[in-house]
Amino acid sequence: MGNPLAAVPPPRMKDGHRTWNASVPADDVLAKQFRLGPEELGPKASGCSVVKQTLQDGIRSGVETIEIDNGRIRFIVLPTRGMGIWQAHCRDVRLGWDSPVRGPVHPAFVHLDEPSGLGWLAGFDEMLVRCGLEYNGGPEFKDNGVLRYGLHGRIANIPAQDVTLSVDSENGSISVRGVVYETRLFGTKLRMTSTIGTQPGRAQITVHDSIENISSELSELELIYHTNFGPPLLEPGSTIVASVKKVIPCDDVATKGLPSWNIMGKETAGAKEQCFFCDLSASDEGRTGVLLRSADRRKAVYYQFNKKQLPCFTVWKNQQCKPDGYVVGLEPGTNYPNTKSVEKEQGRVISLAPGERRAFELVLEYLDDLDAIGTVEEAIREMTC
Amino acid sequence: MGNPLAAVPPPRMKDGHRTWNASVPADDVLAKQFRLGPEELGPKASGCSVVKQTLQDGIRSGVETIEIDNGRIRFIVLPTRGMGIWQAHCRDVRLGWDSPVRGPVHPAFVHLDEPSGLGWLAGFDEMLVRCGLEYNGGPEFKDNGVLRYGLHGRIANIPAQDVTLSVDSENGSISVRGVVYETRLFGTKLRMTSTIGTQPGRAQITVHDSIENISSELSELELIYHTNFGPPLLEPGSTIVASVKKVIPCDDVATKGLPSWNIMGKETAGAKEQCFFCDLSASDEGRTGVLLRSADRRKAVYYQFNKKQLPCFTVWKNQQCKPDGYVVGLEPGTNYPNTKSVEKEQGRVISLAPGERRAFELVLEYLDDLDAIGTVEEAIREMTC
Amino acid sequence: MGNPLAAVPPPRMKDGHRTWNASVPADDVLAKQFRLGPEELGPKASGCSVVKQTLQDGIRSGVETIEIDNGRIRFIVLPTRGMGIWQAHCRDVRLGWDSPVRGPVHPAFVHLDEPSGLGWLAGFDEMLVRCGLEYNGGPEFKDNGVLRYGLHGRIANIPAQDVTLSVDSENGSISVRGVVYETRLFGTKLRMTSTIGTQPGRAQITVHDSIENISSELSELELIYHTNFGPPLLEPGSTIVASVKKVIPCDDVATKGLPSWNIMGKETAGAKEQCFFCDLSASDEGRTGVLLRSADRRKAVYYQFNKKQLPCFTVWKNQQCKPDGYVVGLEPGTNYPNTKSVEKEQGRVISLAPGERRAFELVLEYLDDLDAIGTVEEAIREMTC
Repeated sequence: MGNPLAAVPPPRMKDGHRTWNASVPADDVLAKQFRLGPEELGPKASGCSVVKQTLQDGIRSGVETIEIDNGRIRFIVLPTRGMGIWQAHCRDVRLGWDSPVRGPVHPAFVHLDEPSGLGWLAGFDEMLVRCGLEYNGGPEFKDNGVLRYGLHGRIANIPAQDVTLSVDSENGSISVRGVVYETRLFGTKLRMTSTIGTQPGRAQITVHDSIENISSELSELELIYHTNFGPPLLEPGSTIVASVKKVIPCDDVATKGLPSWNIMGKETAGAKEQCFFCDLSASDEGRTGVLLRSADRRKAVYYQFNKKQLPCFTVWKNQQCKPDGYVVGLEPGTNYPNTKSVEKEQGRVISLAPGERRAFELVLEYLDDLDAIGTVEEAIREMTC
Repeated sequence: MGNPLAAVPPPRMKDGHRTWNASVPADDVLAKQFRLGPEELGPKASGCSVVKQTLQDGIRSGVETIEIDNGRIRFIVLPTRGMGIWQAHCRDVRLGWDSPVRGPVHPAFVHLDEPSGLGWLAGFDEMLVRCGLEYNGGPEFKDNGVLRYGLHGRIANIPAQDVTLSVDSENGSISVRGVVYETRLFGTKLRMTSTIGTQPGRAQITVHDSIENISSELSELELIYHTNFGPPLLEPGSTIVASVKKVIPCDDVATKGLPSWNIMGKETAGAKEQCFFCDLSASDEGRTGVLLRSADRRKAVYYQFNKKQLPCFTVWKNQQCKPDGYVVGLEPGTNYPNTKSVEKEQGRVISLAPGERRAFELVLEYLDDLDAIGTVEEAIREMTC
Repeated sequence: MGNPLAAVPPPRMKDGHRTWNASVPADDVLAKQFRLGPEELGPKASGCSVVKQTLQDGIRSGVETIEIDNGRIRFIVLPTRGMGIWQAHCRDVRLGWDSPVRGPVHPAFVHLDEPSGLGWLAGFDEMLVRCGLEYNGGPEFKDNGVLRYGLHGRIANIPAQDVTLSVDSENGSISVRGVVYETRLFGTKLRMTSTIGTQPGRAQITVHDSIENISSELSELELIYHTNFGPPLLEPGSTIVASVKKVIPCDDVATKGLPSWNIMGKETAGAKEQCFFCDLSASDEGRTGVLLRSADRRKAVYYQFNKKQLPCFTVWKNQQCKPDGYVVGLEPGTNYPNTKSVEKEQGRVISLAPGERRAFELVLEYLDDLDAIGTVEEAIREMTC
């Protein structure tokens, strides 16, 4: 099979797709590593490859990674971390950031219930990490000071089950699908089916999540796509181009930074984080997007999503020095990352009926062409008027 | 050796039994998977098989399962979850339940110390799970609201060590033994040696636990066998037949349900759980048992244990809809699942002297014969008089 | 390659050393087990061996052990537990202790954030375990009773990354190096590079740790080497020989034990632990050391370190019965194991500038020669005058 990574079961065929799968328990012997090349992926994906690894080094031990290379962009999906995306590379440009945490981190080493409410940070180093699903904002405490909701929720530290890889025999697009259950007796019962894909030769990653309330009772839902970029995309003068109708700084520090909310500054020791809550313009169908571009307009990420699905957009500027995490976050969400109680008061917590399902679609595109970047910038600016 | 699951060391022989084992550290290379068939199990267990797996899918990753099939009943023991029993199957009837949690769940994903006290629920989906050993009831908080004892204790999330498989060359009975240490410096020091077995061709599972205080000081002990059944055994009209001397509802909700405490109702969205604390009749030697049977008396589980070992019996009715966990629990225990302080006040917490040991023996039997079920029902009813 | 443990990649050569390594993610396929003998280790280490295992038994599952045998002393390094040392053996004498915990314990089973602050104890069974790095003392609570700092800090439950094994081709010395990151966004950012080594034929283990503040902001640091011995070295009459200038009992219980602070008593059910905070004499360069010897002076551990690096020395006497942990701790540290607030008030918490690094060097030597022990004892006593 041309598989250099040794004795793994060959991927099984499944209605025109090639797929690998895990079921439990009799058949639960999932390959810990493999490499799929042209032969396995077929003629439409001939320049592509898929590599699965199970990491074995310190706090990464046990993390499963699925690296998809479509010839133009190469990115790593993390089933073990709730279907997050670790990093992406386009030629020599890395998308993602350098967290003080050397991840990807196995959830076993993340103490979500740390009394400070900040345990989540011990696992935080992804380019794209979901916050949610029962709650997704800052930590919230009860009157007696005991933690009620930890920072950013549980979903990023719940491994996906039933992970499947598919190649579309028509157009060669490659996608990984995984199912994450945030469920328990007497608690939330939400099932997220996440499909992350790409088409050969395009510098795009598509994320399609479907979240269903599998309970017979009402369920609440909060979801934010915490999407993070450091150098080289982030540098002094990097700019967020967005069709904002309104920008609200989240606190006093952000208020001072408001005039330059969308212009990245230089790294500064001890800089405080700033959050801006944005209301974006969108098409009638909800289409909207933001651009993060380098100072010289030669590198950019164009992030498209749907405002009907994700009405709230938060910018997170963290301009500490590089070793402390020099990073900017683009965060489309169903709500803003306040505590759940605040968001509930504001009517921004979703209530899902039994069996109700919500879909979320996002496209992350890397651009490195001055003209293309200018065109997108123009389009976004026109939307504002 | 006829082992289709590849390069594992062949099981070692041990005084007439065939056994596999793990010791640490020089020799600690435990087979992650194997299958034993007629050739390995010997002539007395010729219709039987034993399959060991190490699961690798999401929150199941790393969970070791030992599936014993005796030709009549097939069940899965979970060394990784404190020697719980995940599910059993008799022909096409599954014993166990459909938890909102898709387990069996590796303890690394269970945050027992969640401030709510309910973290244990994130791992709860077994047919038989032990609650204990230092404490086993509902969550208990200190005056300042900080968690003191989490729901149902630690034992179910402590992996067993020194797991051994034995086949009795005389009668072919197969058993798995594992040792679970609930120990720490300055804390509880209890060692549970659990042996779970079955005889070829009988629809029975036997559980024999020996719990020893390995400290040189007194130790407290609480233990409940939280044994759970959903469909198909559970259905409207399913009935618990028990020789009760007294039934005490645990709260207002249960008080309303008291008249039908032993008759299962239909699944109902938002139904509140009901607990009934029962005092059972028993023989002079302590022998007692309860029956859970289907409405048509064609399927039943007969659960036998010893009242001298397990004086308290709790019925847990949870009649939420199936996706939320439609389930009934039969819970023989050393005490009732109140908070530890309440149980201590009531004198129901065991005090074990240094080196003292308690044995607990239970038999779970599946019945699918109308006459046999009627006979058992009769025997239990007579005991009541 | 003479490797009896099967299909592992052969160790790679690296500038005169033989080394194995892990990098992430493309190359992250670390051998789970191997054995290196004379052929791999080279002529200068011809009597030595190195065995790597990944344990698979209960709460040990996933723990990586590296056992180095230099022909005279044999010891096990635990990369998975922050580069601790589990146990050592010299011929038939075991150094280390019998904890009620049957470790080494994988950090996934240690709930550091247990509200009691004592979760760390669930993993505590090493001969040498580091306490730190953000905090290292007793548990500290906020005014509302919520845990602020858990007992003994996080470092012992953070697996090391980038683990490397080296053999010096000049003198045959063997060392294991690992890097432990205690880092997170908005938190401590300390990197410990630990090198644990030995020379062929000498009953010595050397520990060299370098801890660097990799943040661009100030960082605090606390570090204690919690080094623990039980029988056979510990017995009634075992004595700590130390050049003390001052010994301060930590509480009332210790005050009563002060007259015999350095003489070990017999095991006693329910005995309370006693801590003594010592100020040791040292050479101008800071060289100092303590000896723990058996009653008959035929067995001893000589522990040398540098007072300029580790100014505080704590003796921990725990004379409970053997099953409860009969153990004495020799604890050189940057501070005493009080709560962090107390140590900070006393000016004993280190402040590290951005990029600043501290080195810590310790030597553990086993002695079994009456004369040699006498000579060391003499030398220490002279230092006192």
